[in-house]
Amino acid sequence: MSKTLVFGHKNPDTDTITSAIVYAYLKQQLGVDAEAVRLGELNNETKYALEKFNFEAPRLIANVKDEAAHVILVDHNEFQQSADGIEDVQITEVIDHHRIANFTTADPLYFRAEPVGCTATILNKLFKENNVEIPANIAGLMLSAIISDTLLFKSPTCTEQDVKAGEELAAIANVDTAQYGLAMLKAGADLSDKSLEDLLSLDAKGFEFGEYKATVAQVNAVDIEDVLGRQEELENLLNKNIADNGLDLFFFVVTDILNNDSTAVAAGQVAEEAAKAFGATIVNGRISLPGVVSRKKQIVPVLTENLK
Amino acid sequence: MSKTLVFGHKNPDTDTITSAIVYAYLKQQLGVDAEAVRLGELNNETKYALEKFNFEAPRLIANVKDEAAHVILVDHNEFQQSADGIEDVQITEVIDHHRIANFTTADPLYFRAEPVGCTATILNKLFKENNVEIPANIAGLMLSAIISDTLLFKSPTCTEQDVKAGEELAAIANVDTAQYGLAMLKAGADLSDKSLEDLLSLDAKGFEFGEYKATVAQVNAVDIEDVLGRQEELENLLNKNIADNGLDLFFFVVTDILNNDSTAVAAGQVAEEAAKAFGATIVNGRISLPGVVSRKKQIVPVLTENLK
Repeated sequence: MSKTLVFGHKNPDTDTITSAIVYAYLKQQLGVDAEAVRLGELNNETKYALEKFNFEAPRLIANVKDEAAHVILVDHNEFQQSADGIEDVQITEVIDHHRIANFTTADPLYFRAEPVGCTATILNKLFKENNVEIPANIAGLMLSAIISDTLLFKSPTCTEQDVKAGEELAAIANVDTAQYGLAMLKAGADLSDKSLEDLLSLDAKGFEFGEYKATVAQVNAVDIEDVLGRQEELENLLNKNIADNGLDLFFFVVTDILNNDSTAVAAGQVAEEAAKAFGATIVNGRISLPGVVSRKKQIVPVLTENLK
Repeated sequence: MSKTLVFGHKNPDTDTITSAIVYAYLKQQLGVDAEAVRLGELNNETKYALEKFNFEAPRLIANVKDEAAHVILVDHNEFQQSADGIEDVQITEVIDHHRIANFTTADPLYFRAEPVGCTATILNKLFKENNVEIPANIAGLMLSAIISDTLLFKSPTCTEQDVKAGEELAAIANVDTAQYGLAMLKAGADLSDKSLEDLLSLDAKGFEFGEYKATVAQVNAVDIEDVLGRQEELENLLNKNIADNGLDLFFFVVTDILNNDSTAVAAGQVAEEAAKAFGATIVNGRISLPGVVSRKKQIVPVLTENLK
């Protein structure tokens, strides 16, 4: 039980999976018995990145309490996004780039959050601060995470630090960022093998906005009609999810990765208020969100502010 | 309103006051319009340190919402220990070395917590990471904070990093740490000008242990009978404080800085459970806590674990 597990959030994305692998590697170099694990199925984008740089998927775990006494969280801190059993283990570190909420510990810990676009950008600093060299394939994973979280540096979450880290890591990994990045994003936006149920859970995160319990899910698409074309089926699924999970809002965002816009479908008792929060109304069941691509920077703060 | 205020917790101690001054200085060097402020009266130890290194006390503020839109917290994160109005301003950074609890933001921020003995030890790293030189008088303040929080490196909260930072800072400040440190701690343990009311609030922090609302206060003394000799008066004051503030527990710890032991007086409906949490009983109104000097490391985790 002396092993330390390193993992990102449920419904894992590329930053969460690769940051677990990368930070476990760094901790191992520093003498910690660390293992990267995951809390859910890989998406197609992450599979593409792992294959490109020759990594296996981390082991899937269920309740963390059955696995280890000590854990490190990457790319998240809110307990409802974390492993089941998280309240029963000791969190020794958190490396994250999200808002902080619903997080509590009994003891002091190492908590490093920075307002940058990607966890990998912080990990890049930690390698330097600990004087550990980044191997080429690890750099490739970190670059993949930055490309994914910043939509190839186009998201408003992208900072100068992310751009700089991306350049450094591309040089180490010896990768053409523009070419590889577009191929990776397209692999992730290939939704042809996904059911609508899959799409709703692929990158869904739970939030509490004031007293309202909400899920905000996001998928990337090359053609948003691949997802939104089946609107009635989609709305039925959203309403079922709301009933099953006692939600006040399910906010489902489809992001057009070529045009950098989003369209949302919302259900639940505060769906209209959610649309209004963006100065929008629900038209034919859809909420148009021009220029919106970032859940973290453009969606969650707006809902937090307006639904309290 | 573009100014950023930097402050530590209510009932300020030496680390909280000096870290506000020191981090405001660092942010100013980095081009931020930062001002150190304080949330309460200075204790005698802090006054001694400020005088030694020629600093004025930071300005006292009441409700932070009337003062600035952006704030940086040092040496704390729990909102009940922070400024009134903290929910209404944007927290852009936190530099801390405590557990994380009752803290939430709508947006990502820079949050740097490390499990070290003193905020100044983290600030020492931040000067290096930002390539800013530490002036001698600033180093003196940082050294004072480390001496205070670690009781001259004797507290179990003290880490190798604190010892090393202390050595570096003593060299820059050109101070004999052992001599200056004992003088500073004794200045803080001089309670002759304090009423019992003063002593209860001097270094009192609010906590939530499960559903119980508690205050844990601590004072350093050379002779604990200076404080505990007036036991009946003390117990009346504790009970009044509990009634006035709707507390379930007031845990008042008097720490003998020469022998590195503590004695507590507890009141409230869970006072007996609090004693039991330390494997102790209340004898003549007192709870003996041999070897206990750290609220953070030896008291709060024990109460958190046992009163939930």
